[in-house]
Amino acid sequence: MISTRLTQFFGIEHPIILAPMTPAAGGALASAVSQAGALGLLGGGYADRSWYEEETRNITHHRVGCGFITWSAEKDLELFDRALTDRPTAMMLSFSDPGLLAARVKKAKVPLICQVHTPEHARRAIDVGADVVVAQGTEAGGHGLDEYSTMSLLPLVVDLAAKHSPHVMVGAAGGIADGRGLAAALELGADGVLMGTRFWATQEALIHPAAKLKVVAADGDQTIRTSVYDIVRQKEWPRGYTGRLLRNAFIEKWHGREAELQGLRAEELLKVEEAWSAGDYDTANVTVGQAIGLVHDVPPAAEVVARIMLQASRVIGKFAPRAANA
Amino acid sequence: MISTRLTQFFGIEHPIILAPMTPAAGGALASAVSQAGALGLLGGGYADRSWYEEETRNITHHRVGCGFITWSAEKDLELFDRALTDRPTAMMLSFSDPGLLAARVKKAKVPLICQVHTPEHARRAIDVGADVVVAQGTEAGGHGLDEYSTMSLLPLVVDLAAKHSPHVMVGAAGGIADGRGLAAALELGADGVLMGTRFWATQEALIHPAAKLKVVAADGDQTIRTSVYDIVRQKEWPRGYTGRLLRNAFIEKWHGREAELQGLRAEELLKVEEAWSAGDYDTANVTVGQAIGLVHDVPPAAEVVARIMLQASRVIGKFAPRAANA
Repeated sequence: MISTRLTQFFGIEHPIILAPMTPAAGGALASAVSQAGALGLLGGGYADRSWYEEETRNITHHRVGCGFITWSAEKDLELFDRALTDRPTAMMLSFSDPGLLAARVKKAKVPLICQVHTPEHARRAIDVGADVVVAQGTEAGGHGLDEYSTMSLLPLVVDLAAKHSPHVMVGAAGGIADGRGLAAALELGADGVLMGTRFWATQEALIHPAAKLKVVAADGDQTIRTSVYDIVRQKEWPRGYTGRLLRNAFIEKWHGREAELQGLRAEELLKVEEAWSAGDYDTANVTVGQAIGLVHDVPPAAEVVARIMLQASRVIGKFAPRAANA
Repeated sequence: MISTRLTQFFGIEHPIILAPMTPAAGGALASAVSQAGALGLLGGGYADRSWYEEETRNITHHRVGCGFITWSAEKDLELFDRALTDRPTAMMLSFSDPGLLAARVKKAKVPLICQVHTPEHARRAIDVGADVVVAQGTEAGGHGLDEYSTMSLLPLVVDLAAKHSPHVMVGAAGGIADGRGLAAALELGADGVLMGTRFWATQEALIHPAAKLKVVAADGDQTIRTSVYDIVRQKEWPRGYTGRLLRNAFIEKWHGREAELQGLRAEELLKVEEAWSAGDYDTANVTVGQAIGLVHDVPPAAEVVARIMLQASRVIGKFAPRAANA
């Protein structure tokens, strides 16, 4: 057991939070992670009502939180408020200003996790009442800003929180897929980690098996930050946000030709949706980060948690005598 | 003291290597870092003869190594061989294939450090006989590939070395500027760290005081990867390599207008050279990484080393009891 402020705050055993990936982090994965002693978050994503309703029904553990894409969830406050009424263990907000939704989370007295990409974001998250600020580096899978790496951003956010609001906890996200990453994040000052990619390749993840196999076979430098799928899907992401995805034929074709794609998006969207159903990930997107280089299998989520904790404890223990002699 | 394979191999006290920054890492800085118990490397850079000759004369410590930009040093093998004859404590090669020069280093029986940006680079470095492979993330200052972050790359290189050539040591570079970064790198499996930006802002660094003050005032998100200065200086960097620099007026003006700059480079080069002499860093380049967010002063190099070691030991010690209970 590695006890931190995060484990104490949420009453969990392990300082690991499941990233609320859509659609991978459905009720089954979120529940499995919580069952394993970490904190599972349901991937509320863009706030799709039918997905949210179906997946909340699949939750089988009492301690599961939820996460939304802030600017998208703002478009359906009724769903967001309903999600708060469901009493999630935490509500996580990612991407764009959290002000409007954070006020509702605080009013509902639900613990608030805010994901940030710069120290300025972190200051804002603290101002709106975040209990946990997750510093996400550009190596992370899915959307984010191509600014800081985890190694660069995390200590800045730790220092900022310590100075301005010492009760605020800090999480680390991006590039962390094993116990070494957890140990490193703790040394950098984090109270815990948020992990996506590693849990994406688990039995419970709500992802086509063909995509999981593609990830197991891939290395980290096969990912890229791009907006091509956002264009096709007409997702109006705020300026600067791109998604880190596994490189595939679709990205090779369209990345750099965004203006042309804009004109053909209806046609291309059909292809992407068909590919998604068929499990054709040369055309459909695989949303993972640079940590895929560390992912070599598709175990159950509980095994992932157990492995990480065992490795982290070993790694930390290895250096203890050195520190004692310092 | 934190003893690792790296400290034992080089007979040094601290697992810290000074990045061979040109021109910052002159004889004075490299000597000061070695004097402080770490390993100073002279910044051989593009292999400028007069600079090399002058700065080797400024070396005052017996244990100082040297580093060159591989593809550029290949153009003056006489200078490179002479540098080997000077018996550096280590020779470091960065950027492009190390094969040709590595053979000369091995023949001279000088310890070889190779900087790498991908697992493929790491394999090649091991094949050519590297004693230390430094995994550099995209957050690092100066040239590199915009691929992996340090957090993502380092464990991959550690695993690769452990599997194929367990005697090869691994260093971490990029985003590391304090004891927390050192501790994190060790937890990720590194035998030590290579640090540039933090030593860039020291008393001994061969840099105009105005540039150092600019860095102390800056945050990490004020850096950018660009090729504009390489274009102006007619440096023929291999495809994919860009330099991370502090954003300034010159970069704001030319980044994204590279083709136009190509036509005006003689004219713009004059401006850059004048600015460099005058200490005008709105036009001249400031070569630092994202870790500048952690740099708040300009101490002597020895103080930097002492601070890092104190903080790293504290951080590592903090987690020891947790590991013991694990």
